[in-house]
Amino acid sequence: MQFKVDDITSTTEMNKEELLARINERITDGDVEKKPDELYEPIRYILSAGGKRLRPLLTLFGCYLFSGETEKALLPGIGVELFHTFTLVHDDIMDKAPLRRGNETVHRKWDQNVAILSGDTMLFKAYEYLIRVEDQLIREVITLFNQCAIEVCEGQQYDMNFETRDTVSEKEYLSMIQSKTAAVLGFSLQLGAIIGGAERDDAETLRDFGINMGIGFQLKDDLLDVFGDAGKFGKQVGGDIIANKKTYLLIKAFELASESQKEELRNCLKGKMNDHKKVARVTEIYKELGIKELTDYKINNFFEIAFSHLEKVNCPEGRKEQLADFTQTLMNREN
Amino acid sequence: MQFKVDDITSTTEMNKEELLARINERITDGDVEKKPDELYEPIRYILSAGGKRLRPLLTLFGCYLFSGETEKALLPGIGVELFHTFTLVHDDIMDKAPLRRGNETVHRKWDQNVAILSGDTMLFKAYEYLIRVEDQLIREVITLFNQCAIEVCEGQQYDMNFETRDTVSEKEYLSMIQSKTAAVLGFSLQLGAIIGGAERDDAETLRDFGINMGIGFQLKDDLLDVFGDAGKFGKQVGGDIIANKKTYLLIKAFELASESQKEELRNCLKGKMNDHKKVARVTEIYKELGIKELTDYKINNFFEIAFSHLEKVNCPEGRKEQLADFTQTLMNREN
Repeated sequence: MQFKVDDITSTTEMNKEELLARINERITDGDVEKKPDELYEPIRYILSAGGKRLRPLLTLFGCYLFSGETEKALLPGIGVELFHTFTLVHDDIMDKAPLRRGNETVHRKWDQNVAILSGDTMLFKAYEYLIRVEDQLIREVITLFNQCAIEVCEGQQYDMNFETRDTVSEKEYLSMIQSKTAAVLGFSLQLGAIIGGAERDDAETLRDFGINMGIGFQLKDDLLDVFGDAGKFGKQVGGDIIANKKTYLLIKAFELASESQKEELRNCLKGKMNDHKKVARVTEIYKELGIKELTDYKINNFFEIAFSHLEKVNCPEGRKEQLADFTQTLMNREN
Repeated sequence: MQFKVDDITSTTEMNKEELLARINERITDGDVEKKPDELYEPIRYILSAGGKRLRPLLTLFGCYLFSGETEKALLPGIGVELFHTFTLVHDDIMDKAPLRRGNETVHRKWDQNVAILSGDTMLFKAYEYLIRVEDQLIREVITLFNQCAIEVCEGQQYDMNFETRDTVSEKEYLSMIQSKTAAVLGFSLQLGAIIGGAERDDAETLRDFGINMGIGFQLKDDLLDVFGDAGKFGKQVGGDIIANKKTYLLIKAFELASESQKEELRNCLKGKMNDHKKVARVTEIYKELGIKELTDYKINNFFEIAFSHLEKVNCPEGRKEQLADFTQTLMNREN
């Protein structure tokens, strides 16, 4: 890996806490007074519930690489976060999820209709923010965003399809998370780059950095769900196992398991076991098969590919380090 | 009224059947091969199920008024239809509707998750079509569209809110249908006008024509639901009464009813009566109160306001007649 945390000297411009504060300050702009409350209260609720704000941060980073500043990427970046939040609200309905970031999901706190409609409204708001770019960039930004958004929908549909299938290959799984999760991270960076005045080749290389980082990011999510520290993770450890989610870990386990291990995995999935025992037993099999190490290796692999793209990006000296640092923290995160 | 059906000589350019054919030919463009099927099959299904294509027709009319041609408004007009179809798919989930245009609704034929997600996808497609305008128009088109779309969401939320309220005033109801239904008709025309090169004042006047026409159009819907000819209407006559929908007719009935009539209406709404008897009794009260005549008067009133706006629009001689004719057919329609 080319970039080391030690290289980095934080400037005010790219101080993460300050950037976050600026994002959070603007993200509910103008919604305070809007009516009807049934529509806007859920939007205010979900937008003020926080979150990593990973996508707008990446847009700001992308812009900074090429322009040395971030201001003109702020509103379009918030547009990506609004889109992301829209997908969370609709996905939570589809997944019947009770909690999001430790809070009740919108469809639980209100009802499903409110969640559909306030999600839709957030999406139109997303476009309002996305077009806050210079005139000559609008068509390109909207075109790239539409493609990305449609890819996310396709990824979500594949994810749902996988739930009812007996087997999913590693390749299919990686393709699904690339569409569902990584494409938006790639777009976030590409958007920032375009706003920052990057050559289109460089913007695309930065997007590819983001896509590979995004795949690594999702695999890390899969890993933390099983092997995360319950105290740090902030979610129920083993949640994916309980829900029979076909994660990277489960797919690799089925690929590598002996006949008797496969039989045991299938028994666990059938759901006659209590949750605690099920999580313990599946985790045990993962350990027997070295799934943790294998997933760690794969995560590192995707982050390395990502960094190789980042290296190729042409931008003024000394600007990539903070993005590299930020990416390292994502790679090493424990929650 | 200024415009009479007799004035009209149909040109090839504005031949409605031909325009419809062009719209229908292009509306499923490019979706045939797309995967996954679970996402695109519902989109192909709902888009090929037909419908009046009222909105894209209005966009073509709007463009024709100012440019004498329609070609460059075709794809953006289809964008509005895609948006409209998206709202139908999501509204049908919210309303638990089993049928749409005589066919099973998407959430019934597939499931709710498919309906949410294929609806979302159609919306992104809508933006793809909407930006097929000249560069210098994109910001304006997307800005106006976003405002219109958010207004539609607000209207839908008010509509749902009204369901659980005891009373809704005429003013509140008209405001709701203006947002939920009429705003898009206004936008469809304004969009066409802008594409056709209209002065912005004229585009707005044409939008106001569309909004008033749209309110009249929705009131006509309310009226046909009760007083339509079962053979021509194509839907169950009395459907709104059975569903206790707070239509213009019911709101006016409560406004004008004597105490004993109010008491009877409330009894009908309580739902202990069988459907047939309920429809018959409520219709009877409507007749006693002259609700049909009153609604007819109101419809005429909105169409007259609409036509007064159309008269003020500045465009080359002889181009308004066909739009006026088309509007007359909407006003006089029996289904």
